Amino acid sequence: MAQNETEHWQQLAAQLRIDSIRCTTKAGSGHPSSAMSGADFMAVLMAKYLKYDWNNPDNPNNDSLIFSKGHACPLLYAAYKAAGAISDDEMMTLREIGSRIEGHPTPDIPWVEAATGSLGQGLPIGVGDAISGKYLDKLPFRTWVICGDSEMAEGSMWEAFALASHYELNNLIAIIDVNRLGQRGETMLGWDTGTYVERALAFGWSAIEINGHDVDEIDEAFSMAMDSDRPTCIVARTEKGHGFKEIADKPAWHGKPLSAEQAEVAIKEISDAVGGMPNLLIQVNAPDDAQPQSTPSTGDGKMPAYKLGEKIATRQAYGDAIQVIGASDPAVVVLDAEVSNSTFAETMKKAAPDRFFEIFIAEQQMISTATGLQNRKKKVFCSTFAAFYARAYDQIRMGAISQANLKLCGSHAGVSIGEDGPSQMALEDLSMMRSVFGSTVLYPSDATSTAALVNTMKDLDGISFLRSTREKTPVLYEDGEEFPIGGSKTVRSSDNDVATFIGAGITLHESIKAAETLQAAGTNVRVIDLYSVKPIDVQTIAKAAKETRHLVVVEDHWAQGGLGDAVLAALAQAQTEGVLDGEASKFTHLCVREMPHSGKPDELLDAAGISARHIIAAVS
Amino acid sequence: MAQNETEHWQQLAAQLRIDSIRCTTKAGSGHPSSAMSGADFMAVLMAKYLKYDWNNPDNPNNDSLIFSKGHACPLLYAAYKAAGAISDDEMMTLREIGSRIEGHPTPDIPWVEAATGSLGQGLPIGVGDAISGKYLDKLPFRTWVICGDSEMAEGSMWEAFALASHYELNNLIAIIDVNRLGQRGETMLGWDTGTYVERALAFGWSAIEINGHDVDEIDEAFSMAMDSDRPTCIVARTEKGHGFKEIADKPAWHGKPLSAEQAEVAIKEISDAVGGMPNLLIQVNAPDDAQPQSTPSTGDGKMPAYKLGEKIATRQAYGDAIQVIGASDPAVVVLDAEVSNSTFAETMKKAAPDRFFEIFIAEQQMISTATGLQNRKKKVFCSTFAAFYARAYDQIRMGAISQANLKLCGSHAGVSIGEDGPSQMALEDLSMMRSVFGSTVLYPSDATSTAALVNTMKDLDGISFLRSTREKTPVLYEDGEEFPIGGSKTVRSSDNDVATFIGAGITLHESIKAAETLQAAGTNVRVIDLYSVKPIDVQTIAKAAKETRHLVVVEDHWAQGGLGDAVLAALAQAQTEGVLDGEASKFTHLCVREMPHSGKPDELLDAAGISARHIIAAVS
Repeated sequence: MAQNETEHWQQLAAQLRIDSIRCTTKAGSGHPSSAMSGADFMAVLMAKYLKYDWNNPDNPNNDSLIFSKGHACPLLYAAYKAAGAISDDEMMTLREIGSRIEGHPTPDIPWVEAATGSLGQGLPIGVGDAISGKYLDKLPFRTWVICGDSEMAEGSMWEAFALASHYELNNLIAIIDVNRLGQRGETMLGWDTGTYVERALAFGWSAIEINGHDVDEIDEAFSMAMDSDRPTCIVARTEKGHGFKEIADKPAWHGKPLSAEQAEVAIKEISDAVGGMPNLLIQVNAPDDAQPQSTPSTGDGKMPAYKLGEKIATRQAYGDAIQVIGASDPAVVVLDAEVSNSTFAETMKKAAPDRFFEIFIAEQQMISTATGLQNRKKKVFCSTFAAFYARAYDQIRMGAISQANLKLCGSHAGVSIGEDGPSQMALEDLSMMRSVFGSTVLYPSDATSTAALVNTMKDLDGISFLRSTREKTPVLYEDGEEFPIGGSKTVRSSDNDVATFIGAGITLHESIKAAETLQAAGTNVRVIDLYSVKPIDVQTIAKAAKETRHLVVVEDHWAQGGLGDAVLAALAQAQTEGVLDGEASKFTHLCVREMPHSGKPDELLDAAGISARHIIAAVS
Repeated sequence: MAQNETEHWQQLAAQLRIDSIRCTTKAGSGHPSSAMSGADFMAVLMAKYLKYDWNNPDNPNNDSLIFSKGHACPLLYAAYKAAGAISDDEMMTLREIGSRIEGHPTPDIPWVEAATGSLGQGLPIGVGDAISGKYLDKLPFRTWVICGDSEMAEGSMWEAFALASHYELNNLIAIIDVNRLGQRGETMLGWDTGTYVERALAFGWSAIEINGHDVDEIDEAFSMAMDSDRPTCIVARTEKGHGFKEIADKPAWHGKPLSAEQAEVAIKEISDAVGGMPNLLIQVNAPDDAQPQSTPSTGDGKMPAYKLGEKIATRQAYGDAIQVIGASDPAVVVLDAEVSNSTFAETMKKAAPDRFFEIFIAEQQMISTATGLQNRKKKVFCSTFAAFYARAYDQIRMGAISQANLKLCGSHAGVSIGEDGPSQMALEDLSMMRSVFGSTVLYPSDATSTAALVNTMKDLDGISFLRSTREKTPVLYEDGEEFPIGGSKTVRSSDNDVATFIGAGITLHESIKAAETLQAAGTNVRVIDLYSVKPIDVQTIAKAAKETRHLVVVEDHWAQGGLGDAVLAALAQAQTEGVLDGEASKFTHLCVREMPHSGKPDELLDAAGISARHIIAAVS
């Protein structure tokens, strides 16, 4: 029996290699050699260990299978074919336009949870799946992550190692495919598998060193991993291009398909080694039939009411809203990167402590954890200082490709944070977030609008970002006021406005002060609260341009990519759509143009030229 | 003698604590408790080990001293005062506007090499300094990095650990100040110093565990580190707020100054413990008096000449230029993140192999290494796929605060890379890089302009980014043509142009094709090569708007933050400056608006609506 099982696995591995070659040779590009190194452990995993219902990718009991080394996806597609999930014909459309069988995996394929291809992200995402399984759904599924050895140089992998051991994720199994060769030569550690093991152990994991081409050793390792009391790292020594001597362990074969002639030779060599051309259709184990644990709702979801004029920081209103929705919606999960007392995410510890996870100072891992959790249908809010999302921009970018729903709050934006200085001041966050595919970018100015927008974000698709402010600002809106995405609020207007001030966050308050001073001197100015930066309220901006002929955009952000650029793009769109006439309006852009320093918030707003005094000067 | 030395260090440590308290209490904000935990090792370091010439921060023999835990800077400022580098009066201006004694260290202070405050970046930068010392200047200086324990959760720290051991940087010494407490509670590992030691050892470092408040143990550890054959990590168990019982090891004392009354009690407690108020002025050891190794120039710096019409990828021209300037300018250093055969940075291995450093797949570390190297007067070029700079955006952002000169090339931009799919396609890089303070953003369309611009970047201050293209494109410009920063090239124009096409990179070629087709049908269109995206050629754009009244911007980038936003901002500026009249021009923006997939480059350009056919349609 064992002999038969061994042969079965070997035949399946041969098939996976052959199919990886076939589809990449047909495509004329792709990574067959990186697929071939992992064929043996994928064969054993698919045939014996994985539990997956291909007909129901949303089954909460399904294992997670994540190709952190996304470029090895021909192996994944070959495995899908072997499991009967896709046809051979579809597999052979690899990399063709219109095919979901892409050059790197994306969730256009229903069994792909998250896009990979930017290395070092699959394992961190797996941590999110595993947290969901262990602490939230409390289901026995496992998370299997196929890692490359090259990507072990990415710090994000070690953030994942650290967090997985902190949360004792014994349902997480990482296989490192140590094929020694990166894209342009040997990896940092080559075949020094012992060092991988030492590092994994030092980070609190179990670690098992195996010959990655010996299916019985693989079987034994998987079996041990299933019973481990901690996350397990299987360090598999493999050969890149294994199975075809002409390319095996040869450095020049990264990301290069075989020619048709070479492919023929390779397929013969691989099939001969297992006694003939394999043509296996395997039955992957069905998942368990358990129900995810459900937590009861413990609140009515009623947003906090604030008194007009009361001074409350929008970051505090974020916390107030999180406390309400965290209690009332059991799908809400909150993550924070070790600053929850500053971002006010700590309110979740009161509302639902079992759905708050401390990620420590590891912003990349925070985003990846969220991507994993939302794979498991959680509504995940993340928070840190807005400046530090720059640390995770690649994860956020990939989140958009993963079709992930991520709800991000960035506090402490702009020079108005004061004394801590420029390292802590987000001045590029709006630009960064506007440039994410399909994103929603929100920048409320008071507590009422912040709470309302956080509530809206909860059920929003895609990546949404809310910028909050450190300083206390007066409440502008009454309880119950609505703040639709893509809207704005015209907080002051008259029939004879000579200009329009457009601000958000702290600069809206400076704009209001400026308008009040001007009005006292007999000059009327319109003021728009641009709380929705993307999508933007084109109609209201166009109307203001037409009626007042001078737009003054004021923002606590660099000149590029923020409110100013967003308003100009809105004007251009209005023009194209014929909403605006052919007369150009005057445009003044007040923003941060010099490197700020430490100082008091008011001093810094003034030094940057975005205080009320400067706004007044723009129309004087 | 030892007894006296011990007491001297203890007195100095007391003084550093007292001064950290004094300046933060006066400022009314800051991080005294995080400074107090590190006072003892800073005392020993300053009094016995550091070699530094305060009068000449550019002395190449100076040690590097980097506060990776930047928020503990009151300790750094107190040390500067103890060394006589700054006066007590200046120290007491901490966090005041106009003072260089900021809330986190910046290079406005001449002895601060790099800004810190975004955690997890100081040690990675130190790796760059140490590489310079060991492999380039070949000078015996050491790099000392003061790390916090919280920041050990950042993956970037482990990228630094891995690279430092790979390059055997025995001139690098990291002290981890394990004070157990982060901002909002205990760190992931608390006082589990043994685990820090195991991790450091597994990453190939020496590691020494000490009581961080015992100056003799500290002395012994430093002494061992000086003689180590590998990088050394000193794991110092400390108490946050040590020296003042009321706050020592108490969780609620992060980032909080003492009140005037508390400060008085604390200062008494600390000074009593050392037998009275210390008032020490110490003599820091002078650096060695050696000359940095100089490599001879081995080339004439003459840029390669290309034949008009010849098809050459701009990424290859990058490599050609690197080969020339790498040979001719001994200050040039080239880094790449494991894709040098794709970015063509590998040419440096021929030109000057000792000035090429493989950073492996660790983009954050690549930028930080560059920041460290440029501290040591190197002209550092980095390269990877443009998409993967998103991984290091926080390091780039901080680079601007560090006043670093970083020369970044990003290849494989946009949908035109083809089959690899969206994970590999940079579509937000221009936005990201435009939003960096003081940045220069270049996007050449042919080999001649690429080579010329790389040559210009070599001596450019600040952060510059050059976007290169995967596909081969025809050479447009003759050898010797000049490409000033802030310029553009009008590649086609006539007296009766009905519109202007503005493109760069691959879309310029599509624009030219479109214009040729239109001209054949009797319609003249102007075409502008916007190779300098930031700064941008306002005059030429304004002239085109005035003369043709229709701008069609075409870019292989998302709608936000790229060429389109840059051109609109230029038009707004021209309007403000009176260069443009009051009539609005038509503006059409062709860019990537849907998530791209795998496919052939031509198919994807067309699917995104940025191929010649769509450009023609924009004026038809």
